[in-house]
Amino acid sequence: MLLCDVGNTSYHFLDQSHDYKESVVTFDPKTITQKVYYICVNPDIKESLDALQNWINLAEFIDKHPYYETMGIDRIVACEAVKNGVIVDAGSAITVDVVRDGHFEGGFIYPGTQAMRDTYTNISHALDYEFNYNLNLDIIPKNSQDALSYGYLKLLYNEVMMHKLEVILTGGDSVKLQHIFPDAKCENELLFNSMKKIIKKAKLC
Amino acid sequence: MLLCDVGNTSYHFLDQSHDYKESVVTFDPKTITQKVYYICVNPDIKESLDALQNWINLAEFIDKHPYYETMGIDRIVACEAVKNGVIVDAGSAITVDVVRDGHFEGGFIYPGTQAMRDTYTNISHALDYEFNYNLNLDIIPKNSQDALSYGYLKLLYNEVMMHKLEVILTGGDSVKLQHIFPDAKCENELLFNSMKKIIKKAKLC
Repeated sequence: MLLCDVGNTSYHFLDQSHDYKESVVTFDPKTITQKVYYICVNPDIKESLDALQNWINLAEFIDKHPYYETMGIDRIVACEAVKNGVIVDAGSAITVDVVRDGHFEGGFIYPGTQAMRDTYTNISHALDYEFNYNLNLDIIPKNSQDALSYGYLKLLYNEVMMHKLEVILTGGDSVKLQHIFPDAKCENELLFNSMKKIIKKAKLC
Repeated sequence: MLLCDVGNTSYHFLDQSHDYKESVVTFDPKTITQKVYYICVNPDIKESLDALQNWINLAEFIDKHPYYETMGIDRIVACEAVKNGVIVDAGSAITVDVVRDGHFEGGFIYPGTQAMRDTYTNISHALDYEFNYNLNLDIIPKNSQDALSYGYLKLLYNEVMMHKLEVILTGGDSVKLQHIFPDAKCENELLFNSMKKIIKKAKLC
């Protein structure tokens, strides 16, 4: 069974237990002839996939009533797999969603690590620093690298922890955020596992 | 007396009580022949101003020992004017500095409103929304505009309020942030007032 999570920058495939990525810029989905079960947050790509008979959009098999209309399908699929937790999905954007007792409470969107890094650099070259993921979140900084890192990471940390639920990390940059959330549960395959459950529930194969 | 606060995007002048801005791209500082007392965070412009005899750099008249080496001079000058408070200076970047009992505790840097807006839009056109400055910070959002606004504004709010000090708003975008910090003290002339005190203390005129 071939699964694919299409994001803003890449096609993320899972072929049995082997996962790999293809760039949204260079990859042609027509080159795949077998059946692909997918979700897609990129509106342009979604339109082109709609035209391909072997690409099955799992969004059509989910009850989206508990969520909101413009909510990214990746966030919905992640929430579907969680009973209690704050899901932090670190991709080109970081999405944070709160699920309590199986009920979606709401969520927010924050820039991904590369996007935020570019933001600071574009404001001024004086703000061109790598983030320090090992910074001490209890101390308000007195150096430039930590002042930027704190502005990005501590502010995210405060809000995530405020919900007093287990933190579930997923997405390509989850490894970086593990330093900030050392007690978080890392579920790199959260989306794919949820997609498998949806396929099973809808009896698609 | 002519004062100037040079930021990343504009020269901000105060001529007696009249303030006005000039773009860093188009304005030529040589066109001013009278004495100008200035501070400057832009390294390239600072170098060109150093060559002009009538532009007096106030950075040279401040004891920078309580601060850190790469800290922006605008932040230092703002801190010099405050005894107790969290100073939120909303320009192309938002700088947040904590001063308690006249002692600088530290600070952090966060993207300015336009920079953060561009960040979201660059991640995906699906994130192209104006911020809702009137959003309810007590409710985790269930719509896209508020999910972005919350990601930007609530996270800033949490951290600023955590220090349990008076919030002092300044900078070009302080009006927008007033909705988020309704109890804040707005001091649009915080920097210029501090510059005047520095001039007086150093007996420059």
